[in-house]
Amino acid sequence: MHPADWDAAAKRHRALAKKLRVTIGQDNEILDEALKTADFMINSVPPKDRIRERAPHLKWIQTTAAGVDGLMPMTWLPDDIALTNNTGAHGAKAEESCLMALLMLQSRLPEVIKNQQDRVWKSVFTTPITGKIAVVVGFGDLGQGAGRAAKKLGLEVIAVTRSGKAPRLADRVVSSARIDSVLPKADFVIVTTPLTAETRGLINRDRINLLKPGAGFVNIGRSPIVDYAALRDRLEKGELCGAVLDVFDQEPLPPDSAYWTTKNLVVLPHISCDDPRYIDHLLDFWFLNFERFLAGKKLKNIVDRKLGY
Amino acid sequence: MHPADWDAAAKRHRALAKKLRVTIGQDNEILDEALKTADFMINSVPPKDRIRERAPHLKWIQTTAAGVDGLMPMTWLPDDIALTNNTGAHGAKAEESCLMALLMLQSRLPEVIKNQQDRVWKSVFTTPITGKIAVVVGFGDLGQGAGRAAKKLGLEVIAVTRSGKAPRLADRVVSSARIDSVLPKADFVIVTTPLTAETRGLINRDRINLLKPGAGFVNIGRSPIVDYAALRDRLEKGELCGAVLDVFDQEPLPPDSAYWTTKNLVVLPHISCDDPRYIDHLLDFWFLNFERFLAGKKLKNIVDRKLGY
Repeated sequence: MHPADWDAAAKRHRALAKKLRVTIGQDNEILDEALKTADFMINSVPPKDRIRERAPHLKWIQTTAAGVDGLMPMTWLPDDIALTNNTGAHGAKAEESCLMALLMLQSRLPEVIKNQQDRVWKSVFTTPITGKIAVVVGFGDLGQGAGRAAKKLGLEVIAVTRSGKAPRLADRVVSSARIDSVLPKADFVIVTTPLTAETRGLINRDRINLLKPGAGFVNIGRSPIVDYAALRDRLEKGELCGAVLDVFDQEPLPPDSAYWTTKNLVVLPHISCDDPRYIDHLLDFWFLNFERFLAGKKLKNIVDRKLGY
Repeated sequence: MHPADWDAAAKRHRALAKKLRVTIGQDNEILDEALKTADFMINSVPPKDRIRERAPHLKWIQTTAAGVDGLMPMTWLPDDIALTNNTGAHGAKAEESCLMALLMLQSRLPEVIKNQQDRVWKSVFTTPITGKIAVVVGFGDLGQGAGRAAKKLGLEVIAVTRSGKAPRLADRVVSSARIDSVLPKADFVIVTTPLTAETRGLINRDRINLLKPGAGFVNIGRSPIVDYAALRDRLEKGELCGAVLDVFDQEPLPPDSAYWTTKNLVVLPHISCDDPRYIDHLLDFWFLNFERFLAGKKLKNIVDRKLGY
């Protein structure tokens, strides 16, 4: 966040902003000095070390990210400090990215792109996508964006959620314990869950092998949810129509990574869910939440410390 | 068309098919023998030479293509032979291809794809596309598909048509004589017109230069409508966010073509409007038209010999 972002938000929320004294900084020296008196903190990666000692008045931490898997386990976080995340800011962009990814996979764009690199003209004809089946793993902010995208294209949407419940947007929903029953039906799988103890390794090799020939795969969640080695094996064998991956174990992806040239794989540099105006949206959200705080109301977007989202 | 395609269609339209004696062939010897007695012909490229002499009974030619620019001028076609084209078969696939092309351009996929080739991780953040302006040149079967795509994404659609009229799907419409007034407003231009005497060279260098910096360009019509040299100049200078071209002067594009490597250009091998099931759709359409013929009704999709579509 740049000071200009804050100044613009403060103008949009003038009365509330007047109640605050604000420190903005990028290095740890400023942080420690500011923490001594801070009531609130907005941060991409909050400092976890001895936080109560360093910030005796701290009541509320807002993260600029939606995923808080990097902050787990939350033993570092005192019970009386609220942690809120930025879920809800990414749905609109995620919807468009999933629309694009679904159509690129249906149209065999990974193959067409490779043909262009090789200067090969090969007519790869494909039917419209209507009527195909999308399995959306996770059905929160991103998952519902994926679901809206799939419905716009006339797909049937099967949601996979922890609870086995999902908004009516989904045509069907199963609990993650029953994911094996729906993966073989998928023309497309879209992974959107946060990374938690329950989702880590959820799409393992056995489940990757449940995908039917010609299926397409999209991951806009987190990479450790999926066995990428197993996915690469099936891609290199030409068994899937392709994959669009926005997240990787190591980001930035190093130049010698095998993903850059994996067959029918489109590498997106973690851009699918990020509207560059998100910091404005986040600050608007924060001010509304601050108003709730002042009124003694429960904050929105409070992270469940056990579930990790 | 393969005999199996015909047989399947004849089963779907059994009563009508019984009224026909059918010859299917690929070489000219069969053609000349069949033409001697033929009342009707279905063809991708109809024979233009001495057609009345060779086919004294011929009443109706159906082309398998929508564009009949290759048959102009139509001086070869006797007045009493009807010519119908395959317009209407391509709208659904064109809609999806335009959805994909718009989102790829908005998300700067041409640059992201190049970065993947170069093993470069660079976060190219882009806003959702909603609220941008699409200028759709031509608003027939393909153009309305493009219009539906743009509306699904929340774009404002300005149609450019010969007559200055368009279905209500478009937010605004101007005649092609006034195209200069709308090109500078376009975030995206989608060319969908057939190639006719009026559209050849319509998007000339001056008009390419009217596009604002960062605009995106799509052509699913025919290449001679657009000055590709001018478009390439602006692409190579990085002045546009990219282009998706599905049609070229020479197809297949030869291996030494400069288009393969033009900056921010996605080369599609003439696949954007073609559902591989189109021959089934065409034959279903033909049988319905044949029923009209038998009933003495006016055929659908009759090509205007002067306008060329």
